[in-house]
Amino acid sequence: MALSARALYDFVSENPGEISVVENELLTLFSEDVVDGWLEGTNSRGESGLFPASYVEILSSDKGLSVQGNGEAYHSSYAAGTEYSYQRSAQQGDTSTESTPTRGYPTYSYHSTSQGSDEDWDDDWDEGPAAANQPGGVPGKGGSALASSSSSAYPASPRRGSTQQSRSSATVGRNLNRFSTFVKSGGEAFVLGEASGIVREEDKICVVMGQFGPEWQENPRPFTCSIDDPTKQTKFKGMKSYMSYGLTPSHTQIQVNRRYKHFDWLYARLVERFPVISVPHLPEKQATGRFEEDFISKRRKGLIWWMNHMTTHPVLSRCDVFQHFLTCSSNDEKAWKQGKRKAERDCLVGANFFLTIIPPAIPLDLQDVESKVDGFKTFAKKMDESLAQVNVTLGEFARKQVTGFRKEYQRVGQAFQLLGQAFELDQQEYSLKLNQAMAFTAQAYEAVGDYFVDQPRQDLEPVSDLLAIYQGHLANFPDIIHVQKGALTKAKESQRHADEKDGSAGINERCNIISCATLAEMQHFHRTRVRDFKAQMQHYLQQQIAFYQRITGKLEEALHMYDQA
Amino acid sequence: MALSARALYDFVSENPGEISVVENELLTLFSEDVVDGWLEGTNSRGESGLFPASYVEILSSDKGLSVQGNGEAYHSSYAAGTEYSYQRSAQQGDTSTESTPTRGYPTYSYHSTSQGSDEDWDDDWDEGPAAANQPGGVPGKGGSALASSSSSAYPASPRRGSTQQSRSSATVGRNLNRFSTFVKSGGEAFVLGEASGIVREEDKICVVMGQFGPEWQENPRPFTCSIDDPTKQTKFKGMKSYMSYGLTPSHTQIQVNRRYKHFDWLYARLVERFPVISVPHLPEKQATGRFEEDFISKRRKGLIWWMNHMTTHPVLSRCDVFQHFLTCSSNDEKAWKQGKRKAERDCLVGANFFLTIIPPAIPLDLQDVESKVDGFKTFAKKMDESLAQVNVTLGEFARKQVTGFRKEYQRVGQAFQLLGQAFELDQQEYSLKLNQAMAFTAQAYEAVGDYFVDQPRQDLEPVSDLLAIYQGHLANFPDIIHVQKGALTKAKESQRHADEKDGSAGINERCNIISCATLAEMQHFHRTRVRDFKAQMQHYLQQQIAFYQRITGKLEEALHMYDQA
Repeated sequence: MALSARALYDFVSENPGEISVVENELLTLFSEDVVDGWLEGTNSRGESGLFPASYVEILSSDKGLSVQGNGEAYHSSYAAGTEYSYQRSAQQGDTSTESTPTRGYPTYSYHSTSQGSDEDWDDDWDEGPAAANQPGGVPGKGGSALASSSSSAYPASPRRGSTQQSRSSATVGRNLNRFSTFVKSGGEAFVLGEASGIVREEDKICVVMGQFGPEWQENPRPFTCSIDDPTKQTKFKGMKSYMSYGLTPSHTQIQVNRRYKHFDWLYARLVERFPVISVPHLPEKQATGRFEEDFISKRRKGLIWWMNHMTTHPVLSRCDVFQHFLTCSSNDEKAWKQGKRKAERDCLVGANFFLTIIPPAIPLDLQDVESKVDGFKTFAKKMDESLAQVNVTLGEFARKQVTGFRKEYQRVGQAFQLLGQAFELDQQEYSLKLNQAMAFTAQAYEAVGDYFVDQPRQDLEPVSDLLAIYQGHLANFPDIIHVQKGALTKAKESQRHADEKDGSAGINERCNIISCATLAEMQHFHRTRVRDFKAQMQHYLQQQIAFYQRITGKLEEALHMYDQA
Repeated sequence: MALSARALYDFVSENPGEISVVENELLTLFSEDVVDGWLEGTNSRGESGLFPASYVEILSSDKGLSVQGNGEAYHSSYAAGTEYSYQRSAQQGDTSTESTPTRGYPTYSYHSTSQGSDEDWDDDWDEGPAAANQPGGVPGKGGSALASSSSSAYPASPRRGSTQQSRSSATVGRNLNRFSTFVKSGGEAFVLGEASGIVREEDKICVVMGQFGPEWQENPRPFTCSIDDPTKQTKFKGMKSYMSYGLTPSHTQIQVNRRYKHFDWLYARLVERFPVISVPHLPEKQATGRFEEDFISKRRKGLIWWMNHMTTHPVLSRCDVFQHFLTCSSNDEKAWKQGKRKAERDCLVGANFFLTIIPPAIPLDLQDVESKVDGFKTFAKKMDESLAQVNVTLGEFARKQVTGFRKEYQRVGQAFQLLGQAFELDQQEYSLKLNQAMAFTAQAYEAVGDYFVDQPRQDLEPVSDLLAIYQGHLANFPDIIHVQKGALTKAKESQRHADEKDGSAGINERCNIISCATLAEMQHFHRTRVRDFKAQMQHYLQQQIAFYQRITGKLEEALHMYDQA
């Protein structure tokens, strides 16, 4: 059997001697010897040349070794749309100095470069040196920003001319995909043992073994945080205006005022700080073509959901930057800037984040982990698809209620009104009460028509808000799964070479840490999902029941009008 | 001022020397002398010649007399469609030996010539000599039948070569419109004093002065009559089959079985017997393109409404032919035929019917009568228009519920089902109850969709049935109004000539009888309308309330599923 490989990722040749390969493409290898991270072979179009060894998996060799899980090349995303949006954001060559990711979800899309009319981005506090100091370990960043990244946690690719081999293992090479989340998240660096840093006791994140597998250790001091209606603030003697949200955390009971840009900044910190945690997406910054009031109300609802997901996450709720955001006095500019700078200089981001995770004493069975992660992937894909469908259906249902249903009930009202008007031409005493009752019935049906217009705001919109935050989470999980899968691949690779070289124990240990964190996050997702959907379905049904009771009540009023007729 | 006249009806010239006139057309008269019932003049198209004097009203004369109510030429129908259908049925040259009228209402149209599959029209009892013996005093009959009519109550027109003048008044001539309801009903003959017959005490119909004007004296022995589900009967050893309805009048408590053709025959008797009474239309004989069961159910509902209107009418409920229909044993063929022949030979039909009416002691004020009749005409026109609109709207509403509404609710159900199916991929213990609740919610919305499909049968269809019977009544009233208007015109005409000739007192008296009967029938219509619409609107609203309560109940069931989730 010929020596062959399957491409794990797309690779586009940029120099003479290189050949392009497409994900899943079968390649014939000239040799399985990796030279400076490159392999030589022929692609399916008959072109021969070099391609990065880490972009492929070797399918069979004369030594009889094969990579476990052949033919199961995983994708960085279960939703084609998400993948597409990543690529698009990279292609757009985002020149923003902000390093926030573009998650590409239509409902909760995140646009750090848009300049909202009610926001002012010229504040000096946004332009500190910290901005250039941010690691690039977030998806959606362009290649140029990546190339200039000076973060030590960030691995250099062979393309960049580095000939340096991994310190920990010569046989387990680096992933050459410069856009791989596994690489960018720092997951690879951590697995390869390149992460180092001092972890304070309070930064340690424990994963405990729960009834249903690994779980984040619960926050011993749970709290909530209310968000008031935003108020319009002005500065520069009224030249500039912005909306300010009053936040009151339950554990301090002290209100702080934050602007949307503060949420935005916090979000960016959290995303770079926690590679395998699904940071809830912020509601869209500005919706075009909407009335301001509707938009402000919708964004506040989105922020309430966001805050709810933040405060109930055992890890996110306790982290320094979030606590700083929630508790730093709005009037203490100095304290705010200190906390801001501290967060932006945090060393425990990217690869180092994984150093903070304390796994349960007994390592997980990797086979079991893989099966669970695959199960979650299937689940998430299906849920993502059904959310999209439910969103469309409920949106259409709301639209029909506001237009069609209303029209039908009002037409019935108008028909009764017309008949009532004919009846009113007869003014004999015994007709009068019937005439009144008919007129009332006509009004009742007109009113019911109006009920239908109001209703979606009561029941369907809250469901839609919930779906949006979950669509955001589901858009996060492909990356999280990608990191875990990357770690698992490394662990398997290291096991394959375990006979020859040592170092596999360390890799397994670190892979276990990533797996524990991933499964804990998935568990958290499920628990939150059950909690949220239970509450929201109850709310929806309660509102629906109240709605039909309201109709019933109106019709009963109309019915009683006939008692005297 | 030139001597002129306004045409009251269309007249089409058939012989040289005659000119055609169109209703409302202004004519210039050569002279106001009526020769053998004809006037001479010029129409608006400049044609000069003869036209029937009774087809026009003289607008001004050199004697300074003018007909009261000038410029208020009444129409035989307020609904153009009704008029049209009359003409059409005459033009069709109906060759049926049945002399039943074609009322032309789409919902309850009456087709005596159609051969329904479940009916057998070859029965010998339908072909007795009585059929040829029936007077032609019903609308919709062709001219040929009219010409061959031997009924003494029927006035000969001048067109037919008769030179005989009215016995009672030389100045009040006959109406020459051979299709005028006033003429055909016998109203004219009665007003002119040509009706004669012996009225038994039990045939007398009293009009009493009630709180709101003339009323039919109430039936001192009111009763109701139930109609069972029809059963299929066969005869000729199963060769022929028909549906038989079991009728049980409350005053006999003895069930009789009647076929649709018996209703049909009864209806024809009633129409010829009672010119100014609105005989309720029978439900359509056979609807094409419907499932038999649906049709049978619909016709039974229509017959129930019909029976309700019959038994609650003070005059119709008491008349011999109806009592014969309700009480003659289904097994006594001989008694049935006797009663049948008696009814068909009834002398008190047409003009003689009016002999049976006993008016209140004090004659009505004719001005007041005219104003009331005009008011009713306006009312009936408006009600007729609104019923048509309500019918369309409710039909559309029903259609939307069965299609659109159902689809929307089922789509919501399907969306929840889809989401539930995604959730079911997670089989952790804490998810199971939510999964069950989601599945139940999905089913609940599917069920609500089905409720919408069932609902119109419960609430909208009964309303539609009611509208149909009232559309039938409203189609009757133009003829009733026409008879009264004709009588009023005669009375006015006679008053005009009162100085010259006598006989006006008798005409006034007879006009008063027709007016009393007309107003009593209108009063009865209003009372019945208030009763029926009150009951039906209550039923509709009760059904609607029950419907929304049913939805509420289903959603509450779904809500409780989340209690344990």
